[in-house]
Parts: sequence; structure tokens; C-alpha cells
Amino acid sequence: MKAELIAIGNEVTSGDIADTNSAWLARKLREVGVEVDRIGVVGDRLELIQEVLREASSRAPVVIATGGLGPTFDDLTRKAAAAFAGVELERNRDAVRHLESWFRNRGRPMPRENLCQAEIPSGAEMLGNTRGTAPGFSIQVKGSGSEGGSHLFFLPGVPQEMRAMYRDEVLPRLRQIFPDGSFLRHFKIHLFGIWESEANQRLRQEFTPGEMGHLGIRASGGIITVKAYLDDPSGSGSSPLPARLQALFRDVAIGEGEETLESALIQACNARGATLSVAESCTGGLIASRITSIPGASSAFSQGWVVYSDAAKVNLLGVPRELLRTHGAVSEPVARALAVGALERSGSDVAVSVTGIAGPSGGTSDKPVGLVWFGAAVRKEGSARNILSFSRRIKGSRSRVQLFSANTALDLARRALVSPHPESLFRT
Amino acid sequence: MKAELIAIGNEVTSGDIADTNSAWLARKLREVGVEVDRIGVVGDRLELIQEVLREASSRAPVVIATGGLGPTFDDLTRKAAAAFAGVELERNRDAVRHLESWFRNRGRPMPRENLCQAEIPSGAEMLGNTRGTAPGFSIQVKGSGSEGGSHLFFLPGVPQEMRAMYRDEVLPRLRQIFPDGSFLRHFKIHLFGIWESEANQRLRQEFTPGEMGHLGIRASGGIITVKAYLDDPSGSGSSPLPARLQALFRDVAIGEGEETLESALIQACNARGATLSVAESCTGGLIASRITSIPGASSAFSQGWVVYSDAAKVNLLGVPRELLRTHGAVSEPVARALAVGALERSGSDVAVSVTGIAGPSGGTSDKPVGLVWFGAAVRKEGSARNILSFSRRIKGSRSRVQLFSANTALDLARRALVSPHPESLFRT
Repeated sequence: MKAELIAIGNEVTSGDIADTNSAWLARKLREVGVEVDRIGVVGDRLELIQEVLREASSRAPVVIATGGLGPTFDDLTRKAAAAFAGVELERNRDAVRHLESWFRNRGRPMPRENLCQAEIPSGAEMLGNTRGTAPGFSIQVKGSGSEGGSHLFFLPGVPQEMRAMYRDEVLPRLRQIFPDGSFLRHFKIHLFGIWESEANQRLRQEFTPGEMGHLGIRASGGIITVKAYLDDPSGSGSSPLPARLQALFRDVAIGEGEETLESALIQACNARGATLSVAESCTGGLIASRITSIPGASSAFSQGWVVYSDAAKVNLLGVPRELLRTHGAVSEPVARALAVGALERSGSDVAVSVTGIAGPSGGTSDKPVGLVWFGAAVRKEGSARNILSFSRRIKGSRSRVQLFSANTALDLARRALVSPHPESLFRT
Repeated sequence: MKAELIAIGNEVTSGDIADTNSAWLARKLREVGVEVDRIGVVGDRLELIQEVLREASSRAPVVIATGGLGPTFDDLTRKAAAAFAGVELERNRDAVRHLESWFRNRGRPMPRENLCQAEIPSGAEMLGNTRGTAPGFSIQVKGSGSEGGSHLFFLPGVPQEMRAMYRDEVLPRLRQIFPDGSFLRHFKIHLFGIWESEANQRLRQEFTPGEMGHLGIRASGGIITVKAYLDDPSGSGSSPLPARLQALFRDVAIGEGEETLESALIQACNARGATLSVAESCTGGLIASRITSIPGASSAFSQGWVVYSDAAKVNLLGVPRELLRTHGAVSEPVARALAVGALERSGSDVAVSVTGIAGPSGGTSDKPVGLVWFGAAVRKEGSARNILSFSRRIKGSRSRVQLFSANTALDLARRALVSPHPESLFRT
């Protein structure tokens, strides 16, 4: 089954924000066998919104629009939907009750302007909002393009409100309207430490052109994701693609599905009862922040240091002044000393460190912008420990250097944990 | 002048990534007076790409498409553009030379599959790519909808490649094609510590409905942005809107234009020669990461601690065990002790701390998920210091609690620096 998405709002067409709502909806729809092949984004203009509603509903049996349901003057979706459906706006009593209790529960008087949010097109069905003020609504129109007409759902643009409303209100209705919707499943495997072109080459050698039609590949921050669409309405899981992809990329795979470098790292720690600490210079807290974005990270992670200055490296983690003088902060000995300092002071089982030149300035011919040294210290029996280190030259902007460095450090920490001889895994 | 944007790729329609390219392009185009009011997103399907190219070019004199120029099997933009223009693909010699030197400079052999990237529609103009392998191209078609036809530009989907190509290749051509393009300027002011509905109310009281048509408002992570479009082709800067917005929101303004909480904080530090440190529990490094995302942050920021566990709070920042036992980690005394510990150990002029329950689990009826305590310690003459603290109850997901907490702490640090009596600024 096919759906089209519409994102409404000047904040999207003007580029103030990217349309993350449509991305989320497309992912969720795909999980239940609904494929999105077009997304339309329009500004806050009454005629334009009507136009895209007409176009999308003439092509697709399901249209989900987000945005423009707020209480402010530039929220025009309610009006546009009513005009498109050829009906008036009507104050919905359930919606008024919802708004009143929303503000009562928060001990605030309801601002007058919020009342307009209770007005939905006459004949539309209200969709409850458990996370915010704006009720959504759904209308059905006789379709010109598709048999049985088109079902249109209007959701708020605030992501957490939109997501809850999709789960609680839209999804159950989709299952009712299209009870025989087949499930289009997919399998994703994430790789790190391989070029996109190299991954592509391996795929071409392994799979037939026909099979390649079921695969997709993308890269972000050094992470390559290969996705296989499993056209398997029975859901019996008999597709051989996942197992073949796992075998093809065994050496560089970091996770599958919704797994990330950071979730895989926490899992690796928990599986071994191991704990982790970090010492960050040029990533400035990004590695710790990624780790602690995972619920329950506290089982594996207790502390981190952001040692941005030379003095901080000396005072907080005991890096010898002499090392900094002789080799500079961005150097192998300092990366190793940072990792050992973090290991010793935290008592953790693994510590990783990053020190580099994120740019845009600060580079020299000797040590260019993008040069980053990584260190890892792994506790062995008694007081013994393994120390690893390597460098990378990362091209691109400051944020790319920081992102790529954080990814490399997260991968390093996991490999240091899971491999008996992690040294052999690093390709420089 | 009007432009439409097209983003091509299954990774966007399937929701694997959000369409950040179009957001960036829309911002850049607006800067030179080009308004985007429609964005189309399509999957990697030959006919579909042709269809949206036809539709967009019939409506707009400028169409910029991103994505689908890679070397892999699912990159179909070159083929679709040729079919749309009714021409063949042709191997471009400049493009071949570019690819060869790209790989030579990196000491890698050129993979065979990359050669297809040198094929562009016959008659198209090649657009150079300084950041990656994929050349772009531009074609002009006789327009059905618009006089003088439509100019179509095809750019790679990798953001840093796309951005460089827009700046180096597309923008100069736009200025040539449309030399009289008027500049549509805008003014943005960012607010923190005010509800969106409250900001909206102030706007309605201050501005006429006509003036409101030039304003937009949006909220993200507690930051409210009010944007004013200055319809001033002369660029004389005579619009009174910016000054009136500044006056209206003087108490809650955190910055203008491209300023952020973190850049405003670094500026406030630099203006006073002050230094800053952070002690983070539930934000887990996010505050330090935000600060160090700013180029040159090292002038103001030297160190930070991620004290995720109770033991780390005691060992790294000297929080008395007794405080943790009596009040728990998420408490006012611990927030204050963390800030003082960071101030003393770093020797910085200001230290902020955050300790809270990010969720999704870990809440109690006493201390629910989303309860966050903030602390700030400010160095005064000699060994004296000011200590501030307050709490917030932040609704929403773990990532929202972490984002809102980081924003609150960044705002707190700046206010503590710039205000002689920062206590009066906090509304609980």
C-alpha cells in the first residue's frame, strides 16, 4: 500500500528546520507495509496547502500531513483542510474539553488563542493529543485517482505530539481501514571501518543484479548502512539476504536494525560486566553524550573527562607535562597517557581517549586540521593492561571531524572489549 | 524569485535520514532573495524522478535537485535527468579527469564503478565537486509554466559536497541568470525562558495583523525563535521590526541571527575574559559537547566532568557522601556541591552543574522522571563566590529532557556571567 506525506510550515520551506517528521513517519509506515514514495513540503499558504492536499489525495489512498495546527496566526492547516474538503470549520466539543483540561492540569489559565485549535473541519473525526494542546483530525474524500477514496490524517508538527498521535490514533485506524496490509519487512546492517565504494564492490561481487534491486546503501559520519528489503508478505523470515549480508560484512559489522555504535558498546560492556570511561579533548564531551543518550547507560558508564586544555590534561588525568612539551597535545604518547589516566582514575575496565585538531584553525603542516589520535587502555589480570593507539586524518568541517572521531572512539572501545587481539583490527 | 527543491533517494522517502539538504538550500536561497515554497521528495525510481522534474520545472524558473549522483547501483538521477530532457547520457571528459585526480590525490586506485559518475546528460553543463567524487550538472529546459524556461541544477546528496557545489557553482550562475534578484532579508531573535503561547501573546499585543504577516514563530527544545521577513528590496535596513522585537523580548532574548545559546555563552565569556567549566550528570557530556562545537571555544572552556555515578560525584568533584545519602543525587545540595567542586578544581570563573532524572526509568513519586536540578557557582573577589540553584520539571522523552536541560544550563551560565543579580532572572 502507498501513502504520501505532507509537511506544512514556513519553518520547513525556509530551511529553519529539516523535515524530520516525514522521516519518522516513513520509517513507521514501512514497518507496517505502507510505502512512501513521495513527500511534499509546503509553506504556510492557504491555496498552496489546498493544492498539495488535492494532488496527494488524487494519487494515494493514505495521506498524512503534519504541521500548522498550532494556536498562532501562521497555523493555516485547519482552514486549508476545510476549504479542500469543501466544508466549514466547526468547534469540536471534545477538543475544547481536551484543551481546558490540558491547561487545568498544568495550573495555567488557557490563553484565548488556543481555543482556535478546537476548530476542525465539519464532519472530520478528531484525533486525540496526549502530549500537547493541538488536536489532530482525519477526513475521508472520494478519490479521483484511487478507488475507495483517500484517507487524510492531520497531525501536529511538534515531533513528540505527532509521534504519540500516530501511534495512538492513526495506526489503529490504518489497520482497520486496510486489514490485509501486508508487512514489508527490512533488514539493516551497519558497518564501520570500510569505504562506501568498497562496501558497494563487495555487494556487486556477492549479489545478482536482481538481488541488488532489494538492497540500498548509505553513509553518514563514516558509518555505512546496507539495507535489504525483504519482500515477504508471509513474514516467515525465510529471505536469505540477511544471513548473506552478515557473512559478507562480518569483519566490519557494528550492529543491525536500530542498533548504534553507542548501544552496541553498552551491550558489549553489559555482556561482560565491564565498565567504561572516556577522556575527550577535541570531541569535547560528544562521546560521553552519545553513550549517555542510551537509557540505562549507567550500568556501564560512570564518568568521563573533557580535558580541552593542556592544563586540564595534566591536572585531571596526570598527563606528564614533559610529554605535552615534547610531543604536543595531539600525539600518540598523549593519547595513550590520557587513556591510562582515565583507566586509573575511574577504576573502569576500558578507557578510550581522543585528542586531535577539529579545526577550522589550529592546524600546521606537521599536524593538519583533521589529525586525530585515539587511545584505548584495557584492564587485564591484576594491574596489567593493554594499551592501543592509532591516528586518523579526517577530512571535512569541524563538526564532521568531531562526529567521525566520536564514531571511531566508540568503535574502538567496543572492539577493545570484544576482541582478544584488537590491535589486528585497526587499519590505518 | 521562486525556486523549487527536489530531494532524491530512498534513504529520504524511507525515513532513514531527514532531508537536511533542502533545509540548508532553502536558507541559502532566501539569503539571496529566492523563495522556496515547495519541496518534493522522491524515492530512487526512474519514472518518479522524471515526473517530479517535469512538475517542478513547469512551475518554477529554478529547480535544484540533490541526491542520486553516487556511484552505486541505486543512483538514478543522471538517467532520469537525461530521459526528462530527452537526451542521452554522455561521458564528460572533465568529469573523468576530476575522478582520476581525486583518487590519485588520495593514493587509491579508482574503482571501476565510479566511472559512471562522469556520465551526464548530453548538452548539460558540468558542475565541479571539490569535496567528493560526484560531479553535478545543470540543464536548461524550455518552460511550459514560466517564461524563459527553467534552470535545473543537479547536486550530490552528501551534505558537504552539495554545500560546496552550491556556493562555488550554483550561486554564481543564479546571480548571472537573474542579475536583478532582489534580496529578501530576514531578522531572527531567539528567546529562552518563555512559553511559545506567551511569546505569541506579546506579539499580538505589539503588532498589527498586517505586521504579523511578516512574522513567524517556532519552538525547539525550549528555545523560541521569532523571525521577521523584511520586504526591503533596497536593502536599506530601514524596517522597524527588528528594533521593536528586541525591545519586546529584551528580558528573554538569548541571541539573534545565527547566534545560539552556546555561541552567546562563549562570547559572554570572551567579553569578560572569563572561563567556564561544567559538571554534568544527566546531560552526560551534552553541555560540554555543545560548547566545544563552537570554533575557538578553548578561549573560554578548558574542562568538564561527566559524573554519571554517585561515586564519580564524590571522587572527581568532592561531593560529600553524606549529601548524597541524605538528599539523593538529584537534589539542590548536590547540584550546588557539583558546581562548587567544578569551580574549585578548574579554577574557572563560572561553573554550572546539572543533576536530574532523564528517564525513561528511575523516577519516583517524590522525584519523577524529568526532575532536574541546576547549579551555578560564580567566582567573586578573592575567595568569595555566588551560588545559584533551581529545579525544573521537564516533560517528554529522555532526549528531550537532556536537550532542555543542556539549554537551561547554557542559559544559566550566560546569565550568571552577564547579570549582577542573576537570581532575579530565574522563574520557577
